[in-house]
Amino acid sequence: MQTIDSLGYKVYFDDTLKSLESYIAKKGYSQILIFVDRNTNDHCLPVLQAALPNLLDYDIIEIDPGEENKNIDFCIGVWKTMLDFGADRKALMINLGGGVVTDMGGFAASTFKRGIDFVQIPTTLLSQVDASVGGKTGIDLDNVKNIIGTFTQPQAVFISSAFLDTLDQRQLTSGFAEIIKHGLIQDKDLYNTCKQIDTTKVSTEIVYRSVEIKNKVIVSDPTEQGLRKILNFGHTIGHAVEGYSLLHDSNPLLHGEAIAIGMICEAWLSHKHTGLTESELKDITQTFLSRYDRYAFGTEIYGELIELMKNDKKNEEGKIGFALLKEIGNATYNVFISEDDIKSALDYYLESCIE
Amino acid sequence: MQTIDSLGYKVYFDDTLKSLESYIAKKGYSQILIFVDRNTNDHCLPVLQAALPNLLDYDIIEIDPGEENKNIDFCIGVWKTMLDFGADRKALMINLGGGVVTDMGGFAASTFKRGIDFVQIPTTLLSQVDASVGGKTGIDLDNVKNIIGTFTQPQAVFISSAFLDTLDQRQLTSGFAEIIKHGLIQDKDLYNTCKQIDTTKVSTEIVYRSVEIKNKVIVSDPTEQGLRKILNFGHTIGHAVEGYSLLHDSNPLLHGEAIAIGMICEAWLSHKHTGLTESELKDITQTFLSRYDRYAFGTEIYGELIELMKNDKKNEEGKIGFALLKEIGNATYNVFISEDDIKSALDYYLESCIE
Repeated sequence: MQTIDSLGYKVYFDDTLKSLESYIAKKGYSQILIFVDRNTNDHCLPVLQAALPNLLDYDIIEIDPGEENKNIDFCIGVWKTMLDFGADRKALMINLGGGVVTDMGGFAASTFKRGIDFVQIPTTLLSQVDASVGGKTGIDLDNVKNIIGTFTQPQAVFISSAFLDTLDQRQLTSGFAEIIKHGLIQDKDLYNTCKQIDTTKVSTEIVYRSVEIKNKVIVSDPTEQGLRKILNFGHTIGHAVEGYSLLHDSNPLLHGEAIAIGMICEAWLSHKHTGLTESELKDITQTFLSRYDRYAFGTEIYGELIELMKNDKKNEEGKIGFALLKEIGNATYNVFISEDDIKSALDYYLESCIE
Repeated sequence: MQTIDSLGYKVYFDDTLKSLESYIAKKGYSQILIFVDRNTNDHCLPVLQAALPNLLDYDIIEIDPGEENKNIDFCIGVWKTMLDFGADRKALMINLGGGVVTDMGGFAASTFKRGIDFVQIPTTLLSQVDASVGGKTGIDLDNVKNIIGTFTQPQAVFISSAFLDTLDQRQLTSGFAEIIKHGLIQDKDLYNTCKQIDTTKVSTEIVYRSVEIKNKVIVSDPTEQGLRKILNFGHTIGHAVEGYSLLHDSNPLLHGEAIAIGMICEAWLSHKHTGLTESELKDITQTFLSRYDRYAFGTEIYGELIELMKNDKKNEEGKIGFALLKEIGNATYNVFISEDDIKSALDYYLESCIE
């Protein structure tokens, strides 16, 4: 596999950690900060250390794992730790972890002393296919996802399958939802391939194809003025379900699990509004329901979900905006949908679960 | 006076508020947010309203005035208010106030939903000559000044002398320190002019000349990789004194007052290290001491001041970096100075005060 060229930086797939080593050796950083959560500190940092025996001098910043910690309070803690370590503008931050680490670490780095260099080493399947390209950094505020953030490109991204071995099945399946999404919005072949794949054995080739699709979209529209919005398929409703679950569940949904629900609902909206056929809708519904557990909720939470959707960044002038499918492999964006239709889409999910 | 072209945007001086009106009319913003502090809400917003009778529909975000409030807690309050107002990505934020409002408002806007448009209407002399160009946004953390922020350019800057009439003498004198600084680092004529000016009557011409100098420097080095650092003359020690005063004084020093102290100390360092003559040092010392009250402190606070300096963004690899003068009108940067010399520079200030 080749290196993928993104917005001024490269995504490495082959000999990844060797590439990281030569990257660091080439640049004269004053200091290396490695940002991890407790899980990646335990399971991924040893992999990194084994691969980079010459990387001896670094400081570790650790946060508690979990999406519920991707908030401003933890971010303040990260900034203060950077201050305590005496990080200057020539420090490098290595974000080693899933989306929480890469999103928050990217935000902390992009705003510390008005911006220091950072590289991303996404360690979950989700972050490898989703957070690895695009330059979105962010944290949540008041349970509104990624509401505070920047568009800042990393210096480089290093994707290694070595880290996927550290994941449990639930995390792999969660990440797989974004790969299916990339197929649905841009590549019917990838979608069909996904339907036949056992998510316990995700190959680097599939990760590569998925990143390639996402990269093509974001390079054409770095700051989400237009086409890039199609990447949000499933995310308007999915983010609301995820925000709701973070707030109310002791064992909240993972991102991909919530997005899978969102994609079922938004496939229904696509059938109603943008030409997706009924058989495609059924196919998509079946694809997700066969892989993801049903999430039980009642109509009494619709109001709260819609309030969460109203804070979505894709909205304009108070209308709730969606990216929807015209057909499998072909998406559109800036489709504004009424609250009644959103409720019907949620109804469709609940009905599909009991069928 | 002509409009000044900065990094992709214009700074308006003539018919300023009319220019703002036509700017807003031209763009199709979904919403207007006006960010003020209590003082500018009382004294400057009426000026704006009188000049823009057609601007009827906007939301006001207000913070308490004062540098001590330019921190992350207040910034979170601003973000939450933006959320409450339902601001979307096509909203415009108008920052109407001094440096606290323009710096924090710029930061809040540049990070809300990964960035919305903002324009600056600096209302103090200091912010007109200092914060108006350069694209620096920022807030303080743990009394470290501007440690969190971004480089984000506003859409436009509107400078109007109408707002200077709302200032008291102390604020005008504070802002004047930055004008003197622009003379010291780049323009001996401006410095000599400044020495003859009564700070109660600062003309728009002087503001224009000062902005022109700063703009020339920042356009050549937008992200402070090199030359732009000369703008920090007086600020390494000045920021530490300001941070100390914010922490310990009930009526803390204003920014320009602290920077005036910093420039006296750093002129002494310039005499010792970069060729400033003794007569120039005396001249600079006299210029500031004749305009700014002495600030009483003892050698027992030197340790705390140096700790504050160690967090300065210009430092590299633990060494404290300075911009210093080679002569009046000519500055250099990346001069790293020992703690002993910094203490001697502070001694020089204290001795000058009692002479």
